[in-house]
Amino acid sequence: MRNYIVLLALLNVLFLSCNANQNDSKDLSGNENDGHPKLILTKKGVEEIRSHLGKLPLFDASLEKVKQEVDQEIELGIQVPIPKDYSGGYTHERHKRNFLMLQKAGVLYQILQNDKYGNYVKDMLIAYAKMYPTLPIHPKPRSYARGKLFWQCLNDSNWLVYASQGYDCIYNFLSEEERSVLENDLFKPFADYISIQNPQFFNRVHNHSTWGNAAVGMIALVMNDDALLDRALYGIKNAALASNAKDNDGGFIKNKEGKAGYFANLEEPFSPDGYYTEGPYYQRYAMYPFLIFAEALQNVKPEYEVFKFKNNVLLNSIDALLQLTDADGEFFPINDGQKGMSYYSRELVTAVDVAYTYGGNNSGLLSIAKKQQKVTLDDAGLAVALAIKEGKATPFEKKSVNLSDGSKGDEGGIGILRYGEEDLTLVFKYAAQGLSHGHYDKLSFSLFEKGEEVLQDYGLARYVNVEQKGGGNYLKENKTWAKQTIAHNTIVEDETSHFNGKYEVGSKHHSELHFYNIDNSDIQIISGKENNAYPGSKIHRTLAVIKDKEYTKPYVLDVFRVTSDQPHQFDLPYYYFGQPISMNFDVNTSSTLQTLGSKNGYQHLWLEATGLGATKTSQFTWLNNNKFYTISSNTSKQDELLFTRIGANDPNFNLRNDPGFIIRRKNVKQTVFASVIESHGTYSPVSEFSVNATSNIKEVRVIYDTEEYTVVQITNVENEVKTLIISNRDANNQTKHSLKVNNKEFSWVGPFYFK
Amino acid sequence: MRNYIVLLALLNVLFLSCNANQNDSKDLSGNENDGHPKLILTKKGVEEIRSHLGKLPLFDASLEKVKQEVDQEIELGIQVPIPKDYSGGYTHERHKRNFLMLQKAGVLYQILQNDKYGNYVKDMLIAYAKMYPTLPIHPKPRSYARGKLFWQCLNDSNWLVYASQGYDCIYNFLSEEERSVLENDLFKPFADYISIQNPQFFNRVHNHSTWGNAAVGMIALVMNDDALLDRALYGIKNAALASNAKDNDGGFIKNKEGKAGYFANLEEPFSPDGYYTEGPYYQRYAMYPFLIFAEALQNVKPEYEVFKFKNNVLLNSIDALLQLTDADGEFFPINDGQKGMSYYSRELVTAVDVAYTYGGNNSGLLSIAKKQQKVTLDDAGLAVALAIKEGKATPFEKKSVNLSDGSKGDEGGIGILRYGEEDLTLVFKYAAQGLSHGHYDKLSFSLFEKGEEVLQDYGLARYVNVEQKGGGNYLKENKTWAKQTIAHNTIVEDETSHFNGKYEVGSKHHSELHFYNIDNSDIQIISGKENNAYPGSKIHRTLAVIKDKEYTKPYVLDVFRVTSDQPHQFDLPYYYFGQPISMNFDVNTSSTLQTLGSKNGYQHLWLEATGLGATKTSQFTWLNNNKFYTISSNTSKQDELLFTRIGANDPNFNLRNDPGFIIRRKNVKQTVFASVIESHGTYSPVSEFSVNATSNIKEVRVIYDTEEYTVVQITNVENEVKTLIISNRDANNQTKHSLKVNNKEFSWVGPFYFK
Repeated sequence: MRNYIVLLALLNVLFLSCNANQNDSKDLSGNENDGHPKLILTKKGVEEIRSHLGKLPLFDASLEKVKQEVDQEIELGIQVPIPKDYSGGYTHERHKRNFLMLQKAGVLYQILQNDKYGNYVKDMLIAYAKMYPTLPIHPKPRSYARGKLFWQCLNDSNWLVYASQGYDCIYNFLSEEERSVLENDLFKPFADYISIQNPQFFNRVHNHSTWGNAAVGMIALVMNDDALLDRALYGIKNAALASNAKDNDGGFIKNKEGKAGYFANLEEPFSPDGYYTEGPYYQRYAMYPFLIFAEALQNVKPEYEVFKFKNNVLLNSIDALLQLTDADGEFFPINDGQKGMSYYSRELVTAVDVAYTYGGNNSGLLSIAKKQQKVTLDDAGLAVALAIKEGKATPFEKKSVNLSDGSKGDEGGIGILRYGEEDLTLVFKYAAQGLSHGHYDKLSFSLFEKGEEVLQDYGLARYVNVEQKGGGNYLKENKTWAKQTIAHNTIVEDETSHFNGKYEVGSKHHSELHFYNIDNSDIQIISGKENNAYPGSKIHRTLAVIKDKEYTKPYVLDVFRVTSDQPHQFDLPYYYFGQPISMNFDVNTSSTLQTLGSKNGYQHLWLEATGLGATKTSQFTWLNNNKFYTISSNTSKQDELLFTRIGANDPNFNLRNDPGFIIRRKNVKQTVFASVIESHGTYSPVSEFSVNATSNIKEVRVIYDTEEYTVVQITNVENEVKTLIISNRDANNQTKHSLKVNNKEFSWVGPFYFK
Repeated sequence: MRNYIVLLALLNVLFLSCNANQNDSKDLSGNENDGHPKLILTKKGVEEIRSHLGKLPLFDASLEKVKQEVDQEIELGIQVPIPKDYSGGYTHERHKRNFLMLQKAGVLYQILQNDKYGNYVKDMLIAYAKMYPTLPIHPKPRSYARGKLFWQCLNDSNWLVYASQGYDCIYNFLSEEERSVLENDLFKPFADYISIQNPQFFNRVHNHSTWGNAAVGMIALVMNDDALLDRALYGIKNAALASNAKDNDGGFIKNKEGKAGYFANLEEPFSPDGYYTEGPYYQRYAMYPFLIFAEALQNVKPEYEVFKFKNNVLLNSIDALLQLTDADGEFFPINDGQKGMSYYSRELVTAVDVAYTYGGNNSGLLSIAKKQQKVTLDDAGLAVALAIKEGKATPFEKKSVNLSDGSKGDEGGIGILRYGEEDLTLVFKYAAQGLSHGHYDKLSFSLFEKGEEVLQDYGLARYVNVEQKGGGNYLKENKTWAKQTIAHNTIVEDETSHFNGKYEVGSKHHSELHFYNIDNSDIQIISGKENNAYPGSKIHRTLAVIKDKEYTKPYVLDVFRVTSDQPHQFDLPYYYFGQPISMNFDVNTSSTLQTLGSKNGYQHLWLEATGLGATKTSQFTWLNNNKFYTISSNTSKQDELLFTRIGANDPNFNLRNDPGFIIRRKNVKQTVFASVIESHGTYSPVSEFSVNATSNIKEVRVIYDTEEYTVVQITNVENEVKTLIISNRDANNQTKHSLKVNNKEFSWVGPFYFK
């Protein structure tokens, strides 16, 4: 029933047996060919690894795992099927597995010096070399740059990045004749196809291109082909690309300044702080080709000093990526990000080992390597395993950080406020559009308690590699829901997304940091502004994580100020999880459910219940994973409080049916939404005890608001009052302020006051 | 702001100081009073415990934990507030904490021989003795039997069960005068109030009464009051109870045969296999008073031989209770059961320690005690800790079991089919009504994979001790939703619950086992019948857990046969969790949501989508916790396939918004629903690999169906065919059968054939 070419490998073995015998007796160090392996594993590295075999538990365990995996695959036999499926389908998954095997078996050949692995890599490569010249473009039509082995050049590039490593490992195991077949029938045409024949794929500044660049660059290094290397590093010269062309995610193809190649991809999407503008999920995906190629370049052409490029941006980016994880190591799902991806992924194993080895031996990285329980089977992995064996690991410091966005670091950013051992983590997005994977969610935030989401960012609408779900690719709902503003914890004006959901407009703008201050561990605070999301309107959000001795846990204060030249309706959603427990306002549920709106994502929300704001402070308490949470928000009777559920107009069940709570204020030109979000209590289903099941907050009030200052007062159930004053205009740390509110004088220095 | 009587304790100390001094110098072994403690801790036990202090890690850790807890409470000072709240409220939680402290501090006094603890217990008891005579009936009106300290006598009885133990521990620490005050002002009137003054509470066969009986019995044993003990053991003689009176859960108050007291409660609701008819959640709750009183009775009056009563039913019941848990130790939520309750609860710590000590030292129990990381601080706990220290623990064997229901074991039962290390666990309910906590779900089942629910039983609609949710008590939706048939994975005729949801009718009937066979580990099978749920209709369900070497995991085959004298509509729901992935039939979603019906639970279901059955086999695949599941069911184009979500008509957000999949067949007199449920694949968000994402099943067909036999054929994607034949009438294991279907002869012995 399935369409393999299993026999090809066998034929090749027969065909090439004379050469194979010849190779068997060849000196492994391969002096006559000088310097293979040299890419990731090096000759010197192999020697050192072999001298430590059996002595480094982490390395030995990683090796054993890979050996088991490869041995199992060798048992199954080589399968190189004619390509036909989308991701998730058989041929896709098989070719994906094959390239992983090429790399792994190559490494085993070097480390174990066992020809079984050399032959396996050789036979598989030759099977590919037989098939490749006969292949048409992949039959599945969905991509803007269709591959040959896979439906998109991106996956073909993945293949070459790994296969190059396999080839490097068995380079000296092959005869010249064999190498010539592989290079002429497979590697060179392969490299040309994903570059010259697909400039719309290769010559961009985009994670796709990074894979393409690395793929071409790595095979160039193995083949010692400087012209090809130049193409990888600096792009195709004079490639003709339409300036308005877009890829199938809606991203622009042509780079503004016409730059291309590996260095351009390193230059532009990374900020000096190492934040990658598409977000951590894609940063993780892009990291592997960035790093693996950097490692290869460093090993083969150290004169490029690639790790020092742009002030160590590669190393900074690894640190940024690790900071962009929750307590379980999972990446914050900013922009298009699939939840659950984490620093346990193979890309991050590479990243951590490279960062440790090439980035000054930061011992904190070793504790992450320990958690990963895996190292790369190369020089870097050896260094990490050795250091761990020597007891050098120290805890990796997760901290509050403010990461700039933009290649010059001047296009907004991502602020992360952490309290304690990630007891509470707040992620604030005031960044640039994030290329084609960006969402329209200026000044949105999400909240985590340890590894759990308290207020979620939806992430993407896609099931990567689940073939039943649109071939594992982006689903229609990614555009109609996940990218829309209403899918995020941020303000929506008149039921319309930021920049009207237009990529061209959004790409021109970014939010601005107003101030960021973590000097006082009792109040960590960040404030950002966005002036372009809605013409004529300015939105300004300040978020603080506050630890008050009267409360057992820290709480979040969210102050969202909106000013406009026209009256509008403003919606502020909070996507919580779990079971509503109580609310201090009346709620009406209806006997049939309608959608909240008809477009811009609103068509995907069922309106489950509607309440009217309490006179002073509206409070809503919910229970999730046995913890009690409350949001307390300043409201008036004119405000509507909406309970929603995602999932309307979703004929293929592509969306998760998660709940939401929306504060709606109609017909206002200027207003402040001030809310306290608390995690205040726990429930045990075993002891059946509720502890602190009710909020500590009695009232949240905005007692003063001008263009200059906003003053918010929080009163707790013991009638203790705290006051936050935000300087709306002047964010200078040295400015002295004084203000009289309700006959009380406040004086302070800097952009905020809290007491 | 709060209404304590903190000062009372202080006054008592002054008032009684002359006695206290006198006691301080008294011999702890208390020879002159002979034999205190004697109830749970014994004098001999205390000596042994003291001789092992510091040597048994589990015991020492348990002791240290209790010491820390009690020391903290002593720091806070004694608080004995005037009762006013429902559960979850301050006075309720405070009095609950107090009784736990009385017991724990009493134990600490004995084990650590430190007067600090003796004084704490004494002062608190005396504070209660001061208050009790002044107390009116508790102000909250909701209970059919209101208490004095709590809103219901049930909680007052909890108090006395624990307080008796505290009193026993400090008996010899008190002067005769003090004891006389406590007994006359507190214990005797307390025992009379919950018994003679509340016969509707005390004289029932019900878990409430068990607490009452144990409470009265334990204080009787401490006070050496044989008349009171007699009342506890055999009930109040000639109590006048209306024969139709009900409690506020809708349960009958008067026992059919007029039996009452501890032994009647032990006799009737337990089957000989130790299954408690209300289900494991309440069995767990009832176990503590059953066991703690049994222990006390065994220690003080061994002549009753309580552990041998009804063929060791108490010990059997502990084993049954442990079998009624999933891989995480959580009880199956049969009938009214709150999810998450588990063998980590304090009641089960007692149960395990008692079962080990008084039930023949079953070493499997020790491995559960190890997981609990806790032992009781008494003779039984010492024995367990000692045995664990000596390395005697062996794994506790979870197995397939068939537990009969009914005091004679002839009222149906609960069958549990387990595969592997609880890789798949199927719970089939063909039991009796289960008293007032029973649900109308004849022949329902639920399915677990390790500790995860695959097809859920909803459990109850209640948030125990969460005061915001109706005082932590049963919610209206427990009756309108959770008890209704449509809330369960079983058949519903004409949108009406079994027995029309009438307790009086349901209580008269029970289902019947047809057969149960686990001889072959490749097919474990159970079959049950229900002839009374719907007048004129008979329903018959057979469930099998099948391990086929062609599949990586076992699957479930569900064959539900319905025959009726009139045409009806039949709905068969499956309450899955997670995300729909694919279906092989067309589905229509609508732009507004309606409820599925208007009563019998249907008013709580939103109808999210409707499909029409595929011609042969309808398949629905979903993803939950990174596992792929598929249900494949025989359908015709006349069948409707409904996707629902719980939560309509739920103005207080009391229900969980879980999804459901319902197969609806209209206007049929006789039909068979045959479905395969598979857990067939996995997804990793870290590697982004899908493994076996699609079903192994191609077709499920009923190829023959008569009153005698039902034949189901399963064809897998490799076109391999398996056949299950069920003998619908004759369940005899020796009967020889032969049957010709589609020109094929089948011959076999016993009630089923599978090949």
